[in-house]
Amino acid sequence: MAHSIGILGTGVVAQTLGTRLLGLRYEVTLGTRDVATTLANTKTNQYGGPPFSEWHRRNPHATLGTFRDAASAGSLLLLCTNGGGTLDALTQAGPENFTGKTVVDITNPLDFSKGMPPFLVPQFTNTWSLGEEVQQRVPRANVVKTLNIVNCEIMVHPEKTGGEPTMFVAGNDSRAKEEAIQLLREFGWKDVLDIGDITGARGMEMVLPIWLRTWGALNNGHFGFKIVR
Amino acid sequence: MAHSIGILGTGVVAQTLGTRLLGLRYEVTLGTRDVATTLANTKTNQYGGPPFSEWHRRNPHATLGTFRDAASAGSLLLLCTNGGGTLDALTQAGPENFTGKTVVDITNPLDFSKGMPPFLVPQFTNTWSLGEEVQQRVPRANVVKTLNIVNCEIMVHPEKTGGEPTMFVAGNDSRAKEEAIQLLREFGWKDVLDIGDITGARGMEMVLPIWLRTWGALNNGHFGFKIVR
Repeated sequence: MAHSIGILGTGVVAQTLGTRLLGLRYEVTLGTRDVATTLANTKTNQYGGPPFSEWHRRNPHATLGTFRDAASAGSLLLLCTNGGGTLDALTQAGPENFTGKTVVDITNPLDFSKGMPPFLVPQFTNTWSLGEEVQQRVPRANVVKTLNIVNCEIMVHPEKTGGEPTMFVAGNDSRAKEEAIQLLREFGWKDVLDIGDITGARGMEMVLPIWLRTWGALNNGHFGFKIVR
Repeated sequence: MAHSIGILGTGVVAQTLGTRLLGLRYEVTLGTRDVATTLANTKTNQYGGPPFSEWHRRNPHATLGTFRDAASAGSLLLLCTNGGGTLDALTQAGPENFTGKTVVDITNPLDFSKGMPPFLVPQFTNTWSLGEEVQQRVPRANVVKTLNIVNCEIMVHPEKTGGEPTMFVAGNDSRAKEEAIQLLREFGWKDVLDIGDITGARGMEMVLPIWLRTWGALNNGHFGFKIVR
């Protein structure tokens, strides 16, 4: 298992995963577009959480760098940018820095441009997915789609649902999926279902609309999907 | 609660619901495009089940008629055609026969024209849904989207999953949703979640791709989705 993990992104998902990984004794490097801008930001995030600099003060063992720094530093990589920034982050990180690595893709191709609720970007829906696009952009990496169907607190503490939800994994490489599953187990996931190759990312990303409606009905994001069988 | 139920469709979903409703002592009328053709069909269905005529011999209390007959006969209606035939069935049934009725829409806008697995029809995906289109075609009816996210055996016997899966309902009219929920409870659903108006049908129909992948992974359709919270 990797000991150094690179996280692309510095938002609430990246922070939540970063905190958990530091707790599990991983070396963590977070990557951003512009380090100075990220550190200078004093605004709370869209969920009311603290700005990155405050998170970093509480988690001084994490390293902050560029997307390229994070992709180079990690032997396993997590994509935690918002969906709209994912492909640009790959370009900035340099696809050569992904070669041979397991890349856990947590992103969702959500379009907030027309307000709430967001839609899925049509280009990455139904007959294609952001997960497949990512795999195509870093063809020498082994992309595993997972975790995108739950709130970030639940990603790293599935027991906070009060039960044992199911997590899906989809990817073309069995060893990369095993590596991702090992990480899921460290987070506490007991029921993991391998749904095959990376085209399974379509179904996983298309879960978002029912996730959003369920969140609205429960007025709470601490839930997960269990495959009862 | 309605005592007479009209089912649009005569395929395996319609038959399975019909058998269950007859067992619950409802009067059941199934509607088809052409009665003589449906009765003359001797082929097994796509799932290896018997042709309609054989089902009808085993269930002689069910009435077979046209789409119009079924829509007229039922005080509650179930849409159980395949997705591609749904809108044409509404036209043939006559939208005036839906006025004031609860219409339970179980259909999925699946496109099998490019082989397996099917895609969702882009026109009815993401920013629109077949459920919304149905509501628009029968504006004086109260459409409730539900049951489309499980195998038809599970629709009427959720306990066959071995647990207590969640069923969603979406629709614009609260009383119609209550009527649909009462029917779900008679089928055995204990965990029903109201996700709001008919636009929720988008999320419910977009569950199909992950349903198909899960079915492939388990090699078994007897499963359901539980919202663990």
